[in-house]
Amino acid sequence: MQPLVSIIMGSTSDLPVMEKAAKFLDEMEIPFEVNALSAHRTPDAVETFAKQAKERGLKVIIAGAGMAAALPGVIAANTTLPVIGVPVKSSTLDGVDAVLSMLQMPPGIPVATVAINGALNAAILAVQMLALSDAELAQKFAAYKAGLSQKIEKANKELKEVKFKFKCN
Amino acid sequence: MQPLVSIIMGSTSDLPVMEKAAKFLDEMEIPFEVNALSAHRTPDAVETFAKQAKERGLKVIIAGAGMAAALPGVIAANTTLPVIGVPVKSSTLDGVDAVLSMLQMPPGIPVATVAINGALNAAILAVQMLALSDAELAQKFAAYKAGLSQKIEKANKELKEVKFKFKCN
Amino acid sequence: MQPLVSIIMGSTSDLPVMEKAAKFLDEMEIPFEVNALSAHRTPDAVETFAKQAKERGLKVIIAGAGMAAALPGVIAANTTLPVIGVPVKSSTLDGVDAVLSMLQMPPGIPVATVAINGALNAAILAVQMLALSDAELAQKFAAYKAGLSQKIEKANKELKEVKFKFKCN
Amino acid sequence: MQPLVSIIMGSTSDLPVMEKAAKFLDEMEIPFEVNALSAHRTPDAVETFAKQAKERGLKVIIAGAGMAAALPGVIAANTTLPVIGVPVKSSTLDGVDAVLSMLQMPPGIPVATVAINGALNAAILAVQMLALSDAELAQKFAAYKAGLSQKIEKANKELKEVKFKFKCN
Amino acid sequence: MQPLVSIIMGSTSDLPVMEKAAKFLDEMEIPFEVNALSAHRTPDAVETFAKQAKERGLKVIIAGAGMAAALPGVIAANTTLPVIGVPVKSSTLDGVDAVLSMLQMPPGIPVATVAINGALNAAILAVQMLALSDAELAQKFAAYKAGLSQKIEKANKELKEVKFKFKCN
Amino acid sequence: MQPLVSIIMGSTSDLPVMEKAAKFLDEMEIPFEVNALSAHRTPDAVETFAKQAKERGLKVIIAGAGMAAALPGVIAANTTLPVIGVPVKSSTLDGVDAVLSMLQMPPGIPVATVAINGALNAAILAVQMLALSDAELAQKFAAYKAGLSQKIEKANKELKEVKFKFKCN
Amino acid sequence: MQPLVSIIMGSTSDLPVMEKAAKFLDEMEIPFEVNALSAHRTPDAVETFAKQAKERGLKVIIAGAGMAAALPGVIAANTTLPVIGVPVKSSTLDGVDAVLSMLQMPPGIPVATVAINGALNAAILAVQMLALSDAELAQKFAAYKAGLSQKIEKANKELKEVKFKFKCN
Amino acid sequence: MQPLVSIIMGSTSDLPVMEKAAKFLDEMEIPFEVNALSAHRTPDAVETFAKQAKERGLKVIIAGAGMAAALPGVIAANTTLPVIGVPVKSSTLDGVDAVLSMLQMPPGIPVATVAINGALNAAILAVQMLALSDAELAQKFAAYKAGLSQKIEKANKELKEVKFKFKCN
Repeated sequence: MQPLVSIIMGSTSDLPVMEKAAKFLDEMEIPFEVNALSAHRTPDAVETFAKQAKERGLKVIIAGAGMAAALPGVIAANTTLPVIGVPVKSSTLDGVDAVLSMLQMPPGIPVATVAINGALNAAILAVQMLALSDAELAQKFAAYKAGLSQKIEKANKELKEVKFKFKCN
Repeated sequence: MQPLVSIIMGSTSDLPVMEKAAKFLDEMEIPFEVNALSAHRTPDAVETFAKQAKERGLKVIIAGAGMAAALPGVIAANTTLPVIGVPVKSSTLDGVDAVLSMLQMPPGIPVATVAINGALNAAILAVQMLALSDAELAQKFAAYKAGLSQKIEKANKELKEVKFKFKCN
Repeated sequence: MQPLVSIIMGSTSDLPVMEKAAKFLDEMEIPFEVNALSAHRTPDAVETFAKQAKERGLKVIIAGAGMAAALPGVIAANTTLPVIGVPVKSSTLDGVDAVLSMLQMPPGIPVATVAINGALNAAILAVQMLALSDAELAQKFAAYKAGLSQKIEKANKELKEVKFKFKCN
Repeated sequence: MQPLVSIIMGSTSDLPVMEKAAKFLDEMEIPFEVNALSAHRTPDAVETFAKQAKERGLKVIIAGAGMAAALPGVIAANTTLPVIGVPVKSSTLDGVDAVLSMLQMPPGIPVATVAINGALNAAILAVQMLALSDAELAQKFAAYKAGLSQKIEKANKELKEVKFKFKCN
Repeated sequence: MQPLVSIIMGSTSDLPVMEKAAKFLDEMEIPFEVNALSAHRTPDAVETFAKQAKERGLKVIIAGAGMAAALPGVIAANTTLPVIGVPVKSSTLDGVDAVLSMLQMPPGIPVATVAINGALNAAILAVQMLALSDAELAQKFAAYKAGLSQKIEKANKELKEVKFKFKCN
Repeated sequence: MQPLVSIIMGSTSDLPVMEKAAKFLDEMEIPFEVNALSAHRTPDAVETFAKQAKERGLKVIIAGAGMAAALPGVIAANTTLPVIGVPVKSSTLDGVDAVLSMLQMPPGIPVATVAINGALNAAILAVQMLALSDAELAQKFAAYKAGLSQKIEKANKELKEVKFKFKCN
Repeated sequence: MQPLVSIIMGSTSDLPVMEKAAKFLDEMEIPFEVNALSAHRTPDAVETFAKQAKERGLKVIIAGAGMAAALPGVIAANTTLPVIGVPVKSSTLDGVDAVLSMLQMPPGIPVATVAINGALNAAILAVQMLALSDAELAQKFAAYKAGLSQKIEKANKELKEVKFKFKCN
Repeated sequence: MQPLVSIIMGSTSDLPVMEKAAKFLDEMEIPFEVNALSAHRTPDAVETFAKQAKERGLKVIIAGAGMAAALPGVIAANTTLPVIGVPVKSSTLDGVDAVLSMLQMPPGIPVATVAINGALNAAILAVQMLALSDAELAQKFAAYKAGLSQKIEKANKELKEVKFKFKCN
């Protein structure tokens, strides 16, 4: 099936973070693909990927990378499709290097940046974009979102019982 | 004309930053609206705005705010539409407080964050999202993007002449 | 018994941090309640909670949250009661994101912010506020505070003996 | 008239920041006093002030300081009254030094910290504390808070007219 | 024997860090004492200690503390003796809060700050101060300092052999 | 004359910073060229430049950029020549974003990073590299370096006279 | 007269900061000298200075520097005298680079670091060290320190009158 | 064999980081040496090393150090050879202290700084410098660089199979 979203990671060590994006797209039944491409180690492959992305039928690109995370920016430079960046935490600096390398894009070439290791939210953003012209998906996503509160509400009920351990309540 | 994008700012002092978004949407001939709404000072208005956004026909929301910039997150909590956050630099901390307040959203509720004061890029992201189902807009945006390199190329030519001031070239 | 303090946390994963607040309120025999409510995942519940807090007889609200910690600010936006914020350390950034998201509130809507993971101090602040009009509580708290020095003084005595391991003392 | 709130600043250079607290207390008709006391340069005066604060009838203390801002913490160490800290931005580090010096208090001795230079919010917090046992003040403060949204709503109307400068709206 | 140096720590949890200072003073045969005193939990004891320090014959005070580390500054405020501050790393922020709380002292009241957890260097500084008027100690310390290079030189020799594992050397 | 060094800047607004590199190369009589190329706005031109750099006879590339400064890294990805990165300070974050975007390169593709706005040092590094196989240049550079101390020594003499304004010297 | 304290600065641009140290030493009638020496541009002069410092009769060295501020550490490496470091704020990073370059010294070679631009406090520390064996100086310094509180107390009186501008006091 | 590159580390505890540089130089068959020298603990040895480096036939120096990492700067001050700095992460501050201590060198004395713990990249930079006048090495390095993409491409193929675990692809 023709993928609509492409999940790119700068290194396969980013897979444990990025697979949360894949799982959510799968849950929403959106066809997607997964690639490892490095802006610094496979620049030609990144360029080719980005330049062909639109004509291949892709709609949104999710790119996760750590350190000097040029990947989403370089992809964004070579496509008109929206690019979502996931800053991946690596062994030093807690992911701040990756945040700044993709957040602080110059005027003209945005990267939609999400939280450090926030691959699930990247996939949700992709779904929100696709749902703008897909009413069925919009409905499916609305149901997912409504479900978010239930987990909290259930937790809340359990918490209520916690307080009975205390003498004053 | 029915606005497709809503530009929200937490305070009218954010207007000099946020009007770059308005100008770009105008250049792309996308109907939009501009509002000042504060997550902390007009919470009811924010909630009403966000809950009605989709049924009013809006497609994308751009929210700019400074300091503890809860605005884009609170809007995102109350709509299924994609929300783009613009961290606005205020009098201290260089906008880092605003970045973290919108970038570090919890799983389930993303905000697509752009650079500090990056309102133009927020508008470009909105156009990229709308262009996914609007071929004419996609073409218009592709033309804009192609034009970005010309400014640099022209600058480059001028630079070439700079070097003749030096004795070795 | 009618709770005077409400302890709210953005996620049940914050319970190990926030239960220190519950324990102290219990020790001071102040009736309290514990809730999990998320500014981003259960915005309506947060709004309802905050708007009814005063008429329900609550006096002080303690809200702990991590990441883009909008919870205390959103509660503060919807009540005239004092709101105390506890920034909770999460998996990245050491809690700095949570600190800035609640400390840097705009003029008009304060959040009384305490140390990262400082839930005990949040409860002490709540007690100090309640003690302003409750002489008995004021006395109980004064006794607690006097006791703080004893732990240090006892430790000090033990330290005195440590030095005898060294040859010059 | 017996002051209920004491505004302390570490240096008279903090007056331009701290006078916002004085103005708000005055607007709410709460008797207050203003002092310059330094934890490092007048430690005895700080101690005396803090130890006598409660018996002098004070209810809340607002302490603003910059750099290694020990002032609110040292006052809190010597009184059972609630202490609100205002980190004041000085010539370097954008006030981050002052934030950490008062936010990161050890367990047992809280300082309710507000935004950098956030003296208005400190005064609002003081009012919220006093209003817990003063129904008239509570009403006055509720009116103030309701008024906050009007400024935004008025700004919003003016913004609406801004957009007519653009061709697409 | 009359102690010349007093090692103060804000909490006994700082002992593993601070005992390096004690060991070095012991090695240099300088009489010292060890105390746990908290600027926030035992303010009176700190004041008494600092005010009596000089007349008790102390020459230098080493104060280690974490978080909002007011201890060395408060001691410095109450004595004319030189005070050395050791910022202790605690569970968040890597000791940066402690560094800023003692480094950024206002004009008039210095704290000689050393590296995070740098208690050994604090003791060395104390020895350097005492050696200014104690020729024997100056000699002992010079011998210690000369010995520092030997450890490196020995390591260097071992490294030389490491390289023979490589084919090109 | 065939340029040996290419100075690339991401935007012509970087010229006031980068021209210090040009001036030093000129002083050392090294042929160089100056270009404005943007990794994000003219990606094809950057790629072409980098891929042809070696065969065009260039030896060293100096690339200055601000914000998400991908330029030196993308050039380094496409050439085997050494690439020196100059982080340029822009309107927010003091250049820290640019530092991290070029310093934190992944294993395999280094960028030799210098100080924020440190274009002179970038040119010096380029000269040091070229001097490895150019004895005349090595000598010229050694003379330049020897001259650095003279400015300090002259300043020192002037300082000596400053002290006579003071009564004790 | 034989100088007891040497004030060293890495660049004459540091003079406006460092002259506060000179003025205080002059006020305390301590003979001192002023030098500009750079760890990176005049390394031999620094080494010579440091190695001869003790035999020349110097007691304390104050070294101010900005950026990668190696100066106090390199001096400390070459003398057994106590070295006080003044981190000087330069055009970027607010002096944080200088702080870390002198604060984070390795075990064995301390630098007594003071606040950013805190040259006055460096001189006070030097006086405190010299006063350990100079009773007259100790008395002079005690008088200076007692005077610090007067400025605050005078300011306090003026503040008292400020409050009469407000209606409630 | 005459070493062309010298790998210096401030402490033998840096060996696990720095040996990656040794391994790469060995793989490229470049003769090198390994030394432990401390700018602060063995300043004379560092000076001697740096001053003799060029006449000993060395071409490039790689210096790794942690904390107040003065080592590469001090070496650079004493040689005209290019110096590459490797900031080593130590027990606090994630290596940021080391980055700033070597990145922020003053005008005139550059250190080519690489990523935190980036010793491999330091060695690659050294090879790139040597390859400027060694065609054989240039070819060997080009082959190495071409190989970098293969690891990614192989990983990419494996990733392709990952996606078949999902239902939509």
